[in-house]
Amino acid sequence: MDYSQLALDLHRQYKGKITTSLRDTDELTKEKLSAYYSPGVAAVSKAIAVDEAQLPTYTWTNNLVAVISDGSAVLGLGDIGPKASMPVMEGKALLFKHFAGIDSIPIILDVHTVDEIVATIKAIAPSFGAINLEDIAAPKCFEVEERLKAELDIPVFHDDQHGTAVVTLAGLINAMKVVDKKLEDCKVVIIGAGAAGTAITKLLYQYAKPQIIAVDSKGIISSERTDLNSQKQALLPYLDATISGSLDDAITGADIFVGVSQAGLLTPDLVAKMADKPVVFALANPVPEIMPDVAKSAGVAVLATGRSDFPNQVNNAVAFPGIFRGALDNGVKKITDEHKIAAAEIIASLVESPNKNLIIPSVFNEKLVPAIAAVIR
Amino acid sequence: MDYSQLALDLHRQYKGKITTSLRDTDELTKEKLSAYYSPGVAAVSKAIAVDEAQLPTYTWTNNLVAVISDGSAVLGLGDIGPKASMPVMEGKALLFKHFAGIDSIPIILDVHTVDEIVATIKAIAPSFGAINLEDIAAPKCFEVEERLKAELDIPVFHDDQHGTAVVTLAGLINAMKVVDKKLEDCKVVIIGAGAAGTAITKLLYQYAKPQIIAVDSKGIISSERTDLNSQKQALLPYLDATISGSLDDAITGADIFVGVSQAGLLTPDLVAKMADKPVVFALANPVPEIMPDVAKSAGVAVLATGRSDFPNQVNNAVAFPGIFRGALDNGVKKITDEHKIAAAEIIASLVESPNKNLIIPSVFNEKLVPAIAAVIR
Repeated sequence: MDYSQLALDLHRQYKGKITTSLRDTDELTKEKLSAYYSPGVAAVSKAIAVDEAQLPTYTWTNNLVAVISDGSAVLGLGDIGPKASMPVMEGKALLFKHFAGIDSIPIILDVHTVDEIVATIKAIAPSFGAINLEDIAAPKCFEVEERLKAELDIPVFHDDQHGTAVVTLAGLINAMKVVDKKLEDCKVVIIGAGAAGTAITKLLYQYAKPQIIAVDSKGIISSERTDLNSQKQALLPYLDATISGSLDDAITGADIFVGVSQAGLLTPDLVAKMADKPVVFALANPVPEIMPDVAKSAGVAVLATGRSDFPNQVNNAVAFPGIFRGALDNGVKKITDEHKIAAAEIIASLVESPNKNLIIPSVFNEKLVPAIAAVIR
Repeated sequence: MDYSQLALDLHRQYKGKITTSLRDTDELTKEKLSAYYSPGVAAVSKAIAVDEAQLPTYTWTNNLVAVISDGSAVLGLGDIGPKASMPVMEGKALLFKHFAGIDSIPIILDVHTVDEIVATIKAIAPSFGAINLEDIAAPKCFEVEERLKAELDIPVFHDDQHGTAVVTLAGLINAMKVVDKKLEDCKVVIIGAGAAGTAITKLLYQYAKPQIIAVDSKGIISSERTDLNSQKQALLPYLDATISGSLDDAITGADIFVGVSQAGLLTPDLVAKMADKPVVFALANPVPEIMPDVAKSAGVAVLATGRSDFPNQVNNAVAFPGIFRGALDNGVKKITDEHKIAAAEIIASLVESPNKNLIIPSVFNEKLVPAIAAVIR
């Protein structure tokens, strides 16, 4: 189904998606107004001036996530700029509220270099309880996130990297049960070395150290390559970098294919070169690397995509609401690999009997957010 | 009454003052989720990419004001820093919502030079429909506002300057009716040449060109002074700058005293030197330049203060909700002196029969916001 017209209609009808309201919904008397604002509020400001750690005790920062983007890599649309990215960021804020009860506000940035993005976010960071970076292009997204994580004392999480990696790992944990293999024994080929591909590679390695072969548009990322940028060079320790060659070479004998690349890349001929009971995560959006009907006839054992209209959707909204809920509630300052692995495991555990059409819980599963939040501590 | 304990209690109980919610309060079906977020939202992003002027058609920016401060001049507390300023900024956001239905979010800045503040606000400006600068110290507040007004295409309004000036002018318009004088014939002495004093001076001059004498901590601001900073030099054209001397010299024969200075500055002896039927706006907070009982026995004809527990409160909340309501609804990009004067006149007109205890309408007067909004166009 094409949701374009419904989207345009709903956005126009409601003039956007989120709004603010008062926490205290009882009558705002003159007396309360004098407590919520001048002169009474001065006492609250003084309390924070004395001890800045009291900020979340008295202000909405305890439940507030900023969704921040420069609009440089939005959905499948690419670099459409900050203003055009706003509906996506406001949509993410809606998901935060709907799924996790988290107050969230979209902040779009009209600056685009790493230094400018970092300086701007650092300057406004005291306003928030946590920061969700969104749709910032690779490779600058890596440095932006690393620097902010190092320099800020609130959680900073680039969802395009880590949300995708967590849900992918959760899905693979259950896919392994379906095909009765062990992830640590698998050969994994990852196509696409942008934000998502990089994060998936690192998290899979941390989790099970399988043999991982990553492929970009030039072929296998190996130590023989002389054209690797610093971010791809930094990936080598996580890879079986002794193997070089083409996509064909990479895929031969692979147990698991993870695509964050382009529509239709995975042909039946390539599937035929994979190992027995191939597991395919075809995450290109909106059109996956292989469509379900093609995958089925090619003998794919388990297929996941990024689409809500097919089974096994790798949907970041399965992970990020619970991860941020836990970080805010438990005072977590850094979201670590251990947190991400714990989140993936608990997500996987919420599917009681994994089968080829059910390896990832629905975003509407009400156990998700509290279960994930409980392990982010 | 001391509101400190009530303020601390309420802030702790509700964990802050504002929250976000969804505009569409009907059930969020899977179908609507696909329209509000991926994949449907892409159509909305594309529509804005084609025509950025559509941003307010489809996103909450049409009703969104950022309250931005670096915490350098907060209430009477001074430079307490961004985090300690948050309760005040969140309080202002509450006032925006409560009085004008405007979505408002506090943004506190951990940068403090003019260049950094301007760069940061410019970088995040596409996120908002308008910007309310708050509690930024003079003189940097002047340059910050001027540069942002010149460089941004959304309204930028420093409420400590202009909100105070608008309500002061409204009050003076009605005070003139009470004492049966004309503002243009009056000698006005303004004590304090910070954000509020400067803006009041300029707006009074634009409105009626009375004789204005401004006094800072060094005495009368005159063309003879060699110690004036550039901002005070820029005030000279609005002043009767031929007069020099002390506070005593300034106040002798004055019809109107406007104090944005310090507690108790206006003694009965000084009031005795003023002209017949003296009008006194003693706006120092929380303790005014003269207390009502002292003013009464000293012969003050009309007294206004910044306090809600005395008559005639000069309260910015009388003005800014309607000013921003009008700017957002009517697509106003710059809030001009003409807008401010129109707002002051309409505010004054809402007091049907001005008398010495009623020259400014209550913030709870429901006619205020629509009446002001109608003239901001």
